[in-house]
Amino acid sequence: VLKRLESLNRRTISTSDISRALKLDPTQVRKDLSYTGVVGKPRVGYNLQDLQRCIQSFLGWDKLSRACLVGVGHLGTALLGYDRFNEYGICFAAAFDTDPAKVGCLVHDREVRHLDELPEMAQNLDIRLGILTVPASVAQEVADLMVKAGIQAIWNFTPISLNLEDGIIVEKAQIYASLAVLSRRLEARIS
Amino acid sequence: VLKRLESLNRRTISTSDISRALKLDPTQVRKDLSYTGVVGKPRVGYNLQDLQRCIQSFLGWDKLSRACLVGVGHLGTALLGYDRFNEYGICFAAAFDTDPAKVGCLVHDREVRHLDELPEMAQNLDIRLGILTVPASVAQEVADLMVKAGIQAIWNFTPISLNLEDGIIVEKAQIYASLAVLSRRLEARIS
Repeated sequence: VLKRLESLNRRTISTSDISRALKLDPTQVRKDLSYTGVVGKPRVGYNLQDLQRCIQSFLGWDKLSRACLVGVGHLGTALLGYDRFNEYGICFAAAFDTDPAKVGCLVHDREVRHLDELPEMAQNLDIRLGILTVPASVAQEVADLMVKAGIQAIWNFTPISLNLEDGIIVEKAQIYASLAVLSRRLEARIS
Repeated sequence: VLKRLESLNRRTISTSDISRALKLDPTQVRKDLSYTGVVGKPRVGYNLQDLQRCIQSFLGWDKLSRACLVGVGHLGTALLGYDRFNEYGICFAAAFDTDPAKVGCLVHDREVRHLDELPEMAQNLDIRLGILTVPASVAQEVADLMVKAGIQAIWNFTPISLNLEDGIIVEKAQIYASLAVLSRRLEARIS
């Protein structure tokens, strides 16, 4: 919302603008934004650039974390092709697979490496984030390999609940949770 | 978790088993499960099959909703290839694109149709759910077309906040929200 308004040369935005655009409760929006440390002006709202800067800094999106992706299937390929991850503080440093048909190929201009190279590359390139898009059957094994290689955070796109040592950050991409909410709402409508 | 335990021939499961496996608060698990109407036995827990049946029925996963997907890029292809959506109450009835290179092709054994065919097919096949995996620039336009064709719920994988008439169920696949949580946790760790 903020980026769109900026492209329209808007300078300020109010909590009510945001809550209307996102269909959220204004009180909640105000409360959430206060966590970022941004300060607005009564009856004017927030300076658009200040607000963006505060949100980005709160989320760590102003510093790039190096990430690797393991599992260059359709989902992995879709993620590698998304050219705006850098706006979200992520840069892809490497992509891995074990399929001989994929290793050595370019996917979105990035060479797919063999998974065996992960430990060395993760250390050399200071990769902190691993994106897990492998089949469920090898998810735990590959996650263990990531942790051994020094990766501190895993973005888990598999349906598996990973069992990892304390201190490793694991965030599940909530695709199925989102589907559950959707089908529940559709079900409640019909019945 | 329940499916894995069932495959191991377990008959019952307790709230503490579930909360441990999913790293959730047991009180919250008990409260959430009570919404499904399932009844457990003190000191024993829930019958595994009863619990699965109650959750599936609560979520509407015991009835299949016909879905169509629009936008057969990498993400769309990944979703079409996921062979377990029927366990989540969804069956793919059709896939659409506008790219002449894709229309007519088989993707995971499903013929890609031209988007122009959506209105007729949605009505003939009683499609209630639309999965939106198109580029952001055409998201609103395609969503409008879905609604005109009688589709009641949209699972939105684009980063766009759709503007649709009241009563249409829209669920955003929270991929970027999940990424925001992850990068915030990584940022909090580092700084």
